[in-house]
Amino acid sequence: MARTVGSNGPKTMEAIRKAGLRLIYTQGYEAMSLRRLAAEVGIQAGSLYNHITTKQDLLFDLIKVHMDELLERLDQALDGIADPEDRLQAFIAFHVGYHIARKREVFICYSELRSLESKNYDIVVGLRQQYERKLIGILDDGVASGRFTVADTTVAAYGILAMLTGVCTWFKPAGRLSKEEVTGIYTGMVRHGLVRTVDAPAVAEAT
Amino acid sequence: MARTVGSNGPKTMEAIRKAGLRLIYTQGYEAMSLRRLAAEVGIQAGSLYNHITTKQDLLFDLIKVHMDELLERLDQALDGIADPEDRLQAFIAFHVGYHIARKREVFICYSELRSLESKNYDIVVGLRQQYERKLIGILDDGVASGRFTVADTTVAAYGILAMLTGVCTWFKPAGRLSKEEVTGIYTGMVRHGLVRTVDAPAVAEAT
Repeated sequence: MARTVGSNGPKTMEAIRKAGLRLIYTQGYEAMSLRRLAAEVGIQAGSLYNHITTKQDLLFDLIKVHMDELLERLDQALDGIADPEDRLQAFIAFHVGYHIARKREVFICYSELRSLESKNYDIVVGLRQQYERKLIGILDDGVASGRFTVADTTVAAYGILAMLTGVCTWFKPAGRLSKEEVTGIYTGMVRHGLVRTVDAPAVAEAT
Repeated sequence: MARTVGSNGPKTMEAIRKAGLRLIYTQGYEAMSLRRLAAEVGIQAGSLYNHITTKQDLLFDLIKVHMDELLERLDQALDGIADPEDRLQAFIAFHVGYHIARKREVFICYSELRSLESKNYDIVVGLRQQYERKLIGILDDGVASGRFTVADTTVAAYGILAMLTGVCTWFKPAGRLSKEEVTGIYTGMVRHGLVRTVDAPAVAEAT
């Protein structure tokens, strides 16, 4: 998308992406004017077109780069791990760690799906399904090998993803719990819920 | 907030709320113009002020009414249920059922918190905390009576709420699963994860 001009091209494009992310996060895509975006970057409105074609292209770029990197980093995080339990644990740690550091991207990937033009929307939803299928695959493998008991691996994957991504809405780096503690607690919640032995006793009825 | 005028006042106010909800859901609060809102309702822009004071008041009203009703309905759903397990089950069924039917409200309660003026923001966050504390209270009661094992009841409550609310992002009434089936699966995921006996065995290591 970037049509870099001169030696400052990549640097300016990076500044546009940062300002665009900030403005969409605080005002919403529809309300963001390219005039305001240019002002934030410190360039003339007309100069924006040396770097981006349209506002839609910028939104799509922000979301697609986030999704592409998400998929690439997940593959790295799972690389060389074969056991479904270990893969699930690696997935959880990766997902929490990746999203906790990208609150703005997470927000616009959810809230501005509505603003993507149909072709772009389809591409982004495809990437998201690709990511979801990675987790569903881990759960399916665990079920197939008799290690996991999962009522519905697709619904479970959606549940896990929503629960883990929800960390972004409340986590504060200076808060009561560290990122590692949060990851540990969420791992426990996922593993002992969706990943339990068939023989796990029901909750005791007597009080 | 409503300054109803004449016999059509309440009806017009309801049309404004509906159109406002739809516009904020599709375009975002910041991008919504009162001129467009009036056009959607089929009244003159100036007439809007017979019903709402400001755009901010409309947003606050939409979110606050949703939160007030949520709290009231929850109390009704839990009324007369004393056992922590039964209360948890009732909470889950209520939360899924209530939110699944209010996708737009759920969306703007999350995405447009940013657009609330500080005083309004504080009120809404207070109501949300009130709701969260209901669930934390159920978990605490279960822990106190030795029925639940929960690593951190606050984090568990956030996890449960994010997981359950996430249903709104994928559930389709005409889809593979009914609302009742989804509620059943989510109840199982919560109960056997966050609500397990101390003696629940660890996942078997052998494969």
